[in-house]
Formats: sequence, structure tokens, C-alpha cells
Amino acid sequence: MTFSHLPTPSLLLDRSRLETNIARMASRMAALGVAFRPHLKTAKSAEIAALVLAGQFGGITVSTVREAEYFAAHGITDILYAVGIAAAKLDRLAAVQAGGARVSVITDSVAGARACAAHAAALGAAFDVLIEIDCGEGRAGVTPDADALLDIAAVLAAGPGTRLAGVLTHAGHAYACRTPEDVAKVAEAERSAAVTAARRLRAAGHVCPTVSVGSTPTVLLGGARDGVTEVRAGVYMFGDLSQVELGTCREEDIAVSVLATVIGHRPEHNTLLIDAGALALSKDVGTRLGPRDTGYGLLDGWPGLRVERVYQEHGVVTASEPLPYDALPIGARVRVLPNHSCMTGAMYDAYHVTDGGAEVVAVWPRVNGW
Amino acid sequence: MTFSHLPTPSLLLDRSRLETNIARMASRMAALGVAFRPHLKTAKSAEIAALVLAGQFGGITVSTVREAEYFAAHGITDILYAVGIAAAKLDRLAAVQAGGARVSVITDSVAGARACAAHAAALGAAFDVLIEIDCGEGRAGVTPDADALLDIAAVLAAGPGTRLAGVLTHAGHAYACRTPEDVAKVAEAERSAAVTAARRLRAAGHVCPTVSVGSTPTVLLGGARDGVTEVRAGVYMFGDLSQVELGTCREEDIAVSVLATVIGHRPEHNTLLIDAGALALSKDVGTRLGPRDTGYGLLDGWPGLRVERVYQEHGVVTASEPLPYDALPIGARVRVLPNHSCMTGAMYDAYHVTDGGAEVVAVWPRVNGW
Repeated sequence: MTFSHLPTPSLLLDRSRLETNIARMASRMAALGVAFRPHLKTAKSAEIAALVLAGQFGGITVSTVREAEYFAAHGITDILYAVGIAAAKLDRLAAVQAGGARVSVITDSVAGARACAAHAAALGAAFDVLIEIDCGEGRAGVTPDADALLDIAAVLAAGPGTRLAGVLTHAGHAYACRTPEDVAKVAEAERSAAVTAARRLRAAGHVCPTVSVGSTPTVLLGGARDGVTEVRAGVYMFGDLSQVELGTCREEDIAVSVLATVIGHRPEHNTLLIDAGALALSKDVGTRLGPRDTGYGLLDGWPGLRVERVYQEHGVVTASEPLPYDALPIGARVRVLPNHSCMTGAMYDAYHVTDGGAEVVAVWPRVNGW
Repeated sequence: MTFSHLPTPSLLLDRSRLETNIARMASRMAALGVAFRPHLKTAKSAEIAALVLAGQFGGITVSTVREAEYFAAHGITDILYAVGIAAAKLDRLAAVQAGGARVSVITDSVAGARACAAHAAALGAAFDVLIEIDCGEGRAGVTPDADALLDIAAVLAAGPGTRLAGVLTHAGHAYACRTPEDVAKVAEAERSAAVTAARRLRAAGHVCPTVSVGSTPTVLLGGARDGVTEVRAGVYMFGDLSQVELGTCREEDIAVSVLATVIGHRPEHNTLLIDAGALALSKDVGTRLGPRDTGYGLLDGWPGLRVERVYQEHGVVTASEPLPYDALPIGARVRVLPNHSCMTGAMYDAYHVTDGGAEVVAVWPRVNGW
């Protein structure tokens, strides 16, 4: 079947671009000489996990308990749930561990560490716990020089439901950078914060086997990772228009797109309508403040055409030049490149996989929800 | 089970508020003396459809082919798919009709009408088709005085795969209004556009049995609907913070909320973290340009606390006053009122239904996707 026969909107995945992006990251990791723990919050797919993990040590990062359950059911045995743990979530994660996988979690407070230790112990379980470090984003984590770092470590090390496994940080503020040089500075801040925190823990007599950092921009545009034991990244597998703006990929590297149908022409407004709106594309406008506002996405192969407005199931396409209505009649198919592939992907149950051509060679399910 | 035992994030639905909102709309329709065709793009639930259709004539509006299939499978036999038709979608809609339901579709172009007539005829099917009218929003439709109106009507009336069933319009621009008086003006423009188009069709010798208008704000805040045969609205069932801003409901009428867990405290930033982020809440910022920016949602029962930023699975809560950390410890549950319940609901497979208290009395599935 070719994708011209798919219902619209559908989510397309170009496997050759995906494999190129994966190979590029693997090379980058080999050059850095550091272990890679891919983040599967973007892909949410066992088939993609298998591609990404080839040649790596086998550990993954996830963003939901459901992802942990799903990937464990697909044979992955080293899973880091990288959102601050709420103790009640340990019930399901303990069941994942009982099935044979190891699940690590993160915390950034004494209260959180205590609740985690007590709840896990009551379950008869024990979890490896990383302390989350704030390397400058201000979202979560303790700063590397905070007193709380050692207080949390003491709670985790005492257990019995917890084991202090190391430190973790994520330089989400790299997404606000406007030049590769600025991203590289943030990458160094990310590395330095994690390594500093690890050094303080070790100086206080703790073990700190894991020093985990990462984001797609900091790993691709940053420098050496001295003192880091593992790197995490996820969106690099697909890329998107926000990543193009950051300089981590080119538009022609973006591996996912939304297949849509032209459903209306409004030449008096120089607009056309497609059947991909806010639900099909998401309302992410991550490029709005940048040098090139891509609206809600760009039409692949149609330079200058962008989705300017969205409604639940309608996208309004426009351009600064007159639209090529004759070449895009009602019923024509277009492909929209997403601003943020994590958000857009989450609207779909599955990928329709191509090899770069029009043939759909596979359908790969996704694990959405919580 | 009480909702304190649910995983977070989860989508809660307060059935008593839902029923109050439904009863209010039914009274409004009775007062207007016009038929009501509820839009189920917000609720996407057979259980809610049953509540909404009690006492009505039984027709519904949908926004996706999958919704049409789902509601037909649940016994609804009069379905209007109210997004401009692409002929390829008629394959699945013809199958719905073959199962015993009647499916109406809409178009706003001669090319669309011709493709629809030819494709339906090739399938051995025939569809009722409404002509979409632009009442001022500029998204889709022909203006009521356009020559194209009669051209489209001629194509649809000639068939053989189509029957001209009337006209339809939607005043989406009511959402940009800032006062109830402005909404009432848009409501009159919506009514007038549809009635004018119907009059022109009839003057040209066509039948025009259906004159369909609607949106939640225009039906609740507008005046009489002379000449209109049916009204459509959907989001009124749940309400949301955008509707509060428009004046169609009060905050205490909002029937859906996202249950979340506090997962971190950052008193130095006067923020706390919850495990409901961009996927759990959506990135809708529909109130951003209004008099009260609700961020990505408000914490129910915690005046002044709003979700200020979102990441994939993190929400950052703040307030202009110091946050009540002692009352919201790590592990505490909160409920977030959504900006836009259509967008937030779409992230969930099901509603956890309460009767206003903490007890979960039912789980109602949703039909997402296309």
C-alpha cells in the first residue's frame, strides 16, 4: 500500500531518515566515549527502541510509567524513569521490577526521598535512585552546591527501599539558545553541574556510580563529557522544526510528518485548508519567538507554505507568495513537518513507516498515555 | 475506588456538573424553539452522547470519520460530519451508511461538490450535503452572497451521489469576542448568513431543508434563531477556562479536570512541579490574550495558582502570592481546570467519572484519532 491510500491525518515515519539520525548519534556517542541511554519519550515504540539500542549498552530513559511497563514487556531490562518520582507510582514500577527489569527513579528533595524509601520498603521493593540536579534551567533539581544534595543522599543511602545510584541533570534551557555557541556553553554547564554534584557526594563518602546528563541539543552541539558516565537524548531520532532552528539537524533530516488532505481553497484570503489541525499537529509553537516562525508546521516540498492557524480539525495554510492552488487541488495530499515531534507524535496510535518513497512498509504502534 | 487511588495524570469528569450543563443547554434550546444537534467532538463518548441526546431529536455532529463510525456503532443514526469533505473519506462514510445510519457531509466549492458526487456515485452511495457558509470567520465556506453558492447547489442537486440538504455555518470568530454583547452580534451575523444563503437557494428553485448554525458562545449568548432549523454546540457540556472568559459558564461549572500529583517544590522560585505537562494539559493558551491569562490551566480550589509553564510531562505551578507548600506537600493531589477541554480531553483514552465527590463511579471510554 502507498501512503496515498491512508486516511488523513496520519503520522508518517521515514525509516531511512530515522536510521541516518540514529547512526549519527551513535557516531557522536562513540566519539565522546560515553554510554548512551536513549530517551524514548519521543518515539514511544518498541520497534524504534530496537533500532536505537543496537550497539548500545541497552538502558533506556522513559517519561511515563506506562512507557516503563511497555518497554519492559518488550524485553528491555534497564529503565530510567526520568520525571521526579511520586511514591504512589512505585506500586506499578515495583511490578515492572518483579517482572525482571531494573527501574531507576529520580528525586530532588528530602521529603521525596523519604517517601520513596518508605513506600518501596513497604512494597518489599528497592529502587536505584538518582538525585536530580538543576544545571540552570530552574525547573527541577537541587543546585550542585546545595546542602540538600547531601541530605537527600543520606536518606537514599540509608534505604531500605532505596539505593543511591548517582546524579542526573537535563539542560532544558538549551532550547532557549539562539546559536550553537550558546548551546555549547549550556552543555558545559550541564556537564559541570552533574560532575560537581557527583564529586561532592563522593567526598562525603557516598558511592555515585551514575553521572547522567543530556538533551538532544547539548549532546550534539556540546563538547567533551569528562566525568559523565551516560548521556540521554530522544528527539534527535526524528528531529523537527525546533531542532532545525537550534541547528541540531536539517529540514531534510526530519523523519516524521503528518499526511493531510487539502479540503478547501480560499484564494481571496490566500489560504487553503487541510484536515490536520490542532489535534493532528498539536498546538506547539516552539519556533514563534525565533528568527523563522514556522506557524504550526511547514508543508514538506512546498517552500514558503506554512500552517498559520489551527482549529480542532482544520489547518489554515498560507504563504507570503500567492498559493499554488492549481498544483494543490482539493483532495491533494500534503505532508506537514512538525514543530515539535514529541508533541505531534503523541496524537497518534501508530507510525506508518516508509522507506523514503510512497510505499508503507510497516505500521509501528506507539504507547501513549500514562 | 476514590480518585486518590488513580494514576496521575488522569482525566476526571464530574457527572453532576455535566448534567447541569446539559440541562441548561436543553432549556436554552427549548426557549429558542429550534432543534439541537450536539457536537460530540469535545466529549467523544457514547455514554455522554446518551445523556446529551435525551429529549432531543437524535442527530449529532462529529469532527472525524472515526467518530462517525463509533457513534453509528453505538446506535446513532443521524450523523453530520462537519469538516469539509475530501472525497476519499466517503469510502468509510458509505460503509457507515450501509450499516444503517445517515451521514451528512459539507462542502464549500464546486470542485469539492463534483468530487463528492462522482466518488459517491462510484461507490453506489448517495450523501446529503450541506453547503458551508462563511459568516465572517474567514476559515471555510462561501459567503452568503457568492455566485459559487448557486453553482455548488446546482452540482449537488444534479447528483447522482449527492443530495442538496441545506446550508451550515459556524461562527468560530465568536471566540475572539471580549464581551457578551459582541458575541451576540456575531451570533446574529451567523444566523443572518445562513438564512440569507438558504433564501437565495430557495429563490433559485432549490430545496433547503436544513439551516444549521452554531457554536457554544453564539447559542448561549445570542438572541433568537429565526429561520434556523438546527443549532450545533459541543464544548458547553464541559466548559473550560476559555468559556469562562467568554462568559458562557462559571469556573464552578467546568466538568472536566486533570488529576495530577505534586512532584517537586522550588520555594526559591516560588514554583512547584506537578506531573501534568504539555501532554496531560495540551499546549492550548487560549486565554493568553484575554484579561486573565490562566497559563496552561488553574488549580481547582487553590485561588491564584496556575500552571505557568509546561514541558512534556512537567507542569510548573506558580502564583503571585507565596505558594502554600505546607498544604501541598510532595505527593499531594491537585486538579487542573483546562483552558480548552476539547484539546485536553483528546490526550486521554477515558474519563474517570465522579458524582462531585471523590468516588469514581464509572470509567467512560473516548474515541480519539481519525
